[in-house]
Amino acid sequence: MVDILHRIGVTSSPDDVYTALTTIDGLAGWWTRDTDGDTDIGGVIRFRFEPGGFDMKVLETRPAERVLWEVVDGPEEWIGTRIRFDLKQEDGFTIVLFRHEGWKEPVEFMYHCSTKWAIFLMSLKNLVETGKGEPAPHDVKISNWH
Amino acid sequence: MVDILHRIGVTSSPDDVYTALTTIDGLAGWWTRDTDGDTDIGGVIRFRFEPGGFDMKVLETRPAERVLWEVVDGPEEWIGTRIRFDLKQEDGFTIVLFRHEGWKEPVEFMYHCSTKWAIFLMSLKNLVETGKGEPAPHDVKISNWH
Repeated sequence: MVDILHRIGVTSSPDDVYTALTTIDGLAGWWTRDTDGDTDIGGVIRFRFEPGGFDMKVLETRPAERVLWEVVDGPEEWIGTRIRFDLKQEDGFTIVLFRHEGWKEPVEFMYHCSTKWAIFLMSLKNLVETGKGEPAPHDVKISNWH
Repeated sequence: MVDILHRIGVTSSPDDVYTALTTIDGLAGWWTRDTDGDTDIGGVIRFRFEPGGFDMKVLETRPAERVLWEVVDGPEEWIGTRIRFDLKQEDGFTIVLFRHEGWKEPVEFMYHCSTKWAIFLMSLKNLVETGKGEPAPHDVKISNWH
């Protein structure tokens, strides 16, 4: 099992970051405009992109502290993996520790997703700090895989 | 052992990307302005940043294909780890498969370095495609850890 790890700091409150991770409007503001579904525990959130998308089951939401999803539909490599956001305060920043955990193998698609997650986490930071993220389809392109 | 993985695509030739990875001018154009040393096999390249830096021993350079370094000085967590850039052509892009391998533990600093590597690889992409990267000290800041 191998994991993708990232860490960003947002100059806003943990509550504001948490809102961007647990509401359809928030998620559509930094990851992909085409987001809908149920953000409550046990609900499924649908994220769609031009080439496909992901369905996430919400496993845990702890206000201003943690969000945990399990991938229940999407690319084969993603199904069964988990996506975790842990929040804490440090030096006036809300630190987001991100983990996309449980990849079976470090396939080339995992290399791509690791870089792309960094791009989207910077979009989350921009959304919460400035009100404007860069969600798909207006996301920063990194390669032939978009 | 855990690894940081990334993948970017550069709309330039493998030779141009290789030059940015194997010359002091190239490296200083996307990672840190404060770069010097010997880029030949067995040489040591010094990369310095405001809070410290890294010394890399060049283990392998295969033109337009691969660059491999071993960290011989720097933060304790980095010493002995290896940094690998593998290049290939695909769909008109030069694909860079990046691996910072051999971390002993997934410490919080590794989360930070993973995101920061993505930022610097986008700087590499920008340098080769446009002639202008964002090397330290003008790099994109991601948190209280810069």
